[in-house]
Amino acid sequence: MRIGILGFGTVGRGVYDIISKNQDHLLDEIEVVKILRHHQNQCTTDIMCSDFNELLNSDLDLIVECMGGNEPAHTYIVEALSHGIHVVSANKGVIATYFKEFHDLANAHRVSFAYEASCGGGIPWLAALQKTMRIDPITALHGIFNGTSNFILDHMELNNASYDEVLKQAQALGYAESDPSDDVNGTDCMRKIYIASCLAYQSVLPFHIATFGIENLRSSDIALFKKWRLSIRLIGESKRENDAYAAIVEPMLFSMNRVESATHDNNNLGCLSAETIGELKFYGQGAGKFPTANAIIQDIIDIKQQVQPTLYHFPKQLKKADCLLHGNYILRCIINEDTKVYIDEIKQEILEFDKATYIITKDMTCDAMHALCLKLMHYDDTLFFARFKDEREG
Amino acid sequence: MRIGILGFGTVGRGVYDIISKNQDHLLDEIEVVKILRHHQNQCTTDIMCSDFNELLNSDLDLIVECMGGNEPAHTYIVEALSHGIHVVSANKGVIATYFKEFHDLANAHRVSFAYEASCGGGIPWLAALQKTMRIDPITALHGIFNGTSNFILDHMELNNASYDEVLKQAQALGYAESDPSDDVNGTDCMRKIYIASCLAYQSVLPFHIATFGIENLRSSDIALFKKWRLSIRLIGESKRENDAYAAIVEPMLFSMNRVESATHDNNNLGCLSAETIGELKFYGQGAGKFPTANAIIQDIIDIKQQVQPTLYHFPKQLKKADCLLHGNYILRCIINEDTKVYIDEIKQEILEFDKATYIITKDMTCDAMHALCLKLMHYDDTLFFARFKDEREG
Repeated sequence: MRIGILGFGTVGRGVYDIISKNQDHLLDEIEVVKILRHHQNQCTTDIMCSDFNELLNSDLDLIVECMGGNEPAHTYIVEALSHGIHVVSANKGVIATYFKEFHDLANAHRVSFAYEASCGGGIPWLAALQKTMRIDPITALHGIFNGTSNFILDHMELNNASYDEVLKQAQALGYAESDPSDDVNGTDCMRKIYIASCLAYQSVLPFHIATFGIENLRSSDIALFKKWRLSIRLIGESKRENDAYAAIVEPMLFSMNRVESATHDNNNLGCLSAETIGELKFYGQGAGKFPTANAIIQDIIDIKQQVQPTLYHFPKQLKKADCLLHGNYILRCIINEDTKVYIDEIKQEILEFDKATYIITKDMTCDAMHALCLKLMHYDDTLFFARFKDEREG
Repeated sequence: MRIGILGFGTVGRGVYDIISKNQDHLLDEIEVVKILRHHQNQCTTDIMCSDFNELLNSDLDLIVECMGGNEPAHTYIVEALSHGIHVVSANKGVIATYFKEFHDLANAHRVSFAYEASCGGGIPWLAALQKTMRIDPITALHGIFNGTSNFILDHMELNNASYDEVLKQAQALGYAESDPSDDVNGTDCMRKIYIASCLAYQSVLPFHIATFGIENLRSSDIALFKKWRLSIRLIGESKRENDAYAAIVEPMLFSMNRVESATHDNNNLGCLSAETIGELKFYGQGAGKFPTANAIIQDIIDIKQQVQPTLYHFPKQLKKADCLLHGNYILRCIINEDTKVYIDEIKQEILEFDKATYIITKDMTCDAMHALCLKLMHYDDTLFFARFKDEREG
């Protein structure tokens, strides 16, 4: 099997290293014959080039895309699929954005389009969804899909540290990028729950999921949650009931004795529910050179063994039903003349902690809460909220 | 695909129900044509019979064995494989006991022998091992593989209840059998870590793993562990390094913020470590009608889609190296003239709690600890021990 790799950053190198070092077993018929680099002066070996057309003309069976970003990744994936070349990608942004186009193209040219590494990194998470669906319709998904934000939340809780301190530590350890916006504002998690939900519910869903991240979190918020014996995690969640679905990305509060709370550092966790199997949870490294490369190579082996489909069906037309996802929230927000009218509508209890005002809300849909907080942000752009998955203790 | 089911207890009925109710999709070409029951008077439908030879003469493609026990399950599996019929089994006892014979027969007749349901119930755990091994040699396994004992440990801790109280509760809920010996003495867990280790290390290991269960556990032991913020779990563990391996089944103590401690009720957890993927953990229902049936049907679908191998290799010759598994233990044991000489050898610290004497041991191999405690049992057959995975707190 002749393979080309687009992009030779951390993940691309990981793929190359694993394939090169494992020539004894299943990987012995997998050969990296071309690597695309950005600039000609980076092309230090024979198989490197900076012209994508060279790859199209190299009789490749499969292209691994690990460039990141939307362009030129999108164009190259389209070109590869259109030339009848299988594509494996780790690029959740481009996959989520062009989900339908890529699958339609793969169908038209009877090739595979696989992306295990895009969602949950090294965890065989998308494979688990696909396997479960062979017997059971999946009814709910949730999980921790962003390692950077999980590291920040976990270490803020563990060390009573500030957001900025822990972010710096994460950057020093290589767990956070210099611009971590997409990780901490929930965008990365949103792309992943989108991809997983489309697969699990066999439907190309609208690419819009209300998303709230952790940028506004303060160590005093964490101190309050710890007092209640609750851990905070950034969660992507979706549910399906008959022809309706709902999806959300937001911080949630879990009892400390839950698997979610026991997901530490930069680890990820994917959880599914289905009728006969019940709840399954999958834990592991959601990013990093080798875990991500490992997931890519699993896809390659599946395609080589013709286990991956070359025909993708998303037959379900689901309509959004906000009521499927709801709960009680805690909201930290200034109460003044402007905000009071909004807060009066939702409040169940108001409390003070460390000089800040917290509102415990009535049970409300996640979408309603997000919409409300978008309005409140005009008056208090430091507000923070999280949904209670479990009750307060103590 | 024409299927026969041996045994029509909980699991057999689950398999039949799922296949009968899902005739729309992947399962539409899977048909249950024969069900073997113990007695003729149980044969209430056309497809039921009490003579195994009727199944051999029914042009079956695959036989599902969910009878439990060694005989006649062993004989029937041998017969089926010898007749070129694929076999799927949930019966960990017979699989562990006749591991080599069954695989040799499957190889000789080029059929599949699959047993996902035997180990971790509904969790796609053996599939995860096999998938990981395509890239990475697996270096360590551990997990919670017995739901009954986990329910007992978890609820003793949660409710400060006695072993006997919780066992009765588990029996009332159907989580424990009337004779739960194999579950609580570690035998069931031992069979599962044996099966998983043979697969993961590609070696038919000797079927002997030192095993210590939870029958002697007292609520006062749990109270002591809770004071230290440790949860107790019955763990099967194995390790491989080059051509050496070690395996053990014993109670272990984990910090309360670990995934192991967050595995509640009768859930199971399978954990693997491998070079490039790091640590993966898989959580779910380890038993029960539908989760177990689900795992069986996943095997059937894999065999139907020719994803399951029909040729099994266990090429590795591993030698036992006790030193691979070791740690500090806590031992509750009477210290008297007879036991003192043994305890002096291993003690690091001695403490009293709730009128009992506890010894914290030096770092020692698991096998040495088990051998020693076998001797001490002659003098105190109520002794209990557990290995520290994490340090005491507080």
